[in-house]
Amino acid sequence: MKPRINAITLGVNDLEKSLAFYRKLGLPSKGLIGTEFKGDKTHPSGTIAFFEMQGGLILALYPRVELAKDAHLHVGPPSATEFSIGYAVRTREEVDALLKRAKAAGAIITEKPYDRPWGIYSGYFQDPDGHLWEVMWNPQLEIKD
Amino acid sequence: MKPRINAITLGVNDLEKSLAFYRKLGLPSKGLIGTEFKGDKTHPSGTIAFFEMQGGLILALYPRVELAKDAHLHVGPPSATEFSIGYAVRTREEVDALLKRAKAAGAIITEKPYDRPWGIYSGYFQDPDGHLWEVMWNPQLEIKD
Repeated sequence: MKPRINAITLGVNDLEKSLAFYRKLGLPSKGLIGTEFKGDKTHPSGTIAFFEMQGGLILALYPRVELAKDAHLHVGPPSATEFSIGYAVRTREEVDALLKRAKAAGAIITEKPYDRPWGIYSGYFQDPDGHLWEVMWNPQLEIKD
Repeated sequence: MKPRINAITLGVNDLEKSLAFYRKLGLPSKGLIGTEFKGDKTHPSGTIAFFEMQGGLILALYPRVELAKDAHLHVGPPSATEFSIGYAVRTREEVDALLKRAKAAGAIITEKPYDRPWGIYSGYFQDPDGHLWEVMWNPQLEIKD
């Protein structure tokens, strides 16, 4: 297995709502695609939203119930501590500003940002489905774009 | 917000076990770091494992209980349909081979791979914490490495 990740798919309850949220944050998307694949009780729908992230990475939004069908699993309960997505910025002020913007877009801020002993200043927000994003300033990390 | 993701952190129950699993799959890691940051009942431990993925993306393993403390949340129940990670390969045979390898490393295969109506041949495995990876062959997708 190569050290490669091509996509991150977030299980959501309401595609339109989640799409609107991420668009408000500034992420670019062509909107819902694959709408011609309707699915049924056992076959997943193909309707999905993609955001093209840097480095060719795809961030996808897909209903939890469809993900469950696609992977042949039961739908699990919402659970915020399964994973988090890390988003690095260049300054403390950018951490604060993005958390404010996320809140304005409808996110829940789980806590005010603070300094960790390992040298990172960060805070978390939750998207409309409770998925965690850590907005972080790490002085050791060079951000290229 | 730029279309950028710097890290994906997986909430795990047993750091050593999950680290061993991903190493068996071939992902490179320096092992547990940040072990000097012990944490306590309310402050998260800094012990974490990183895998350096292509494009500067970090895949991290971090205990669910510590992620909960770091984000000021209660620990949620394990839930497999919160997200999935997509890993693209070049052929059908590679899909089958990687799923076999994942199974040998201790993964659960939720279903045999099959052809989706939207032109992707894929199957899913679950890591030791139930996190979903979709191994997929998409003839439309160019894989550069």
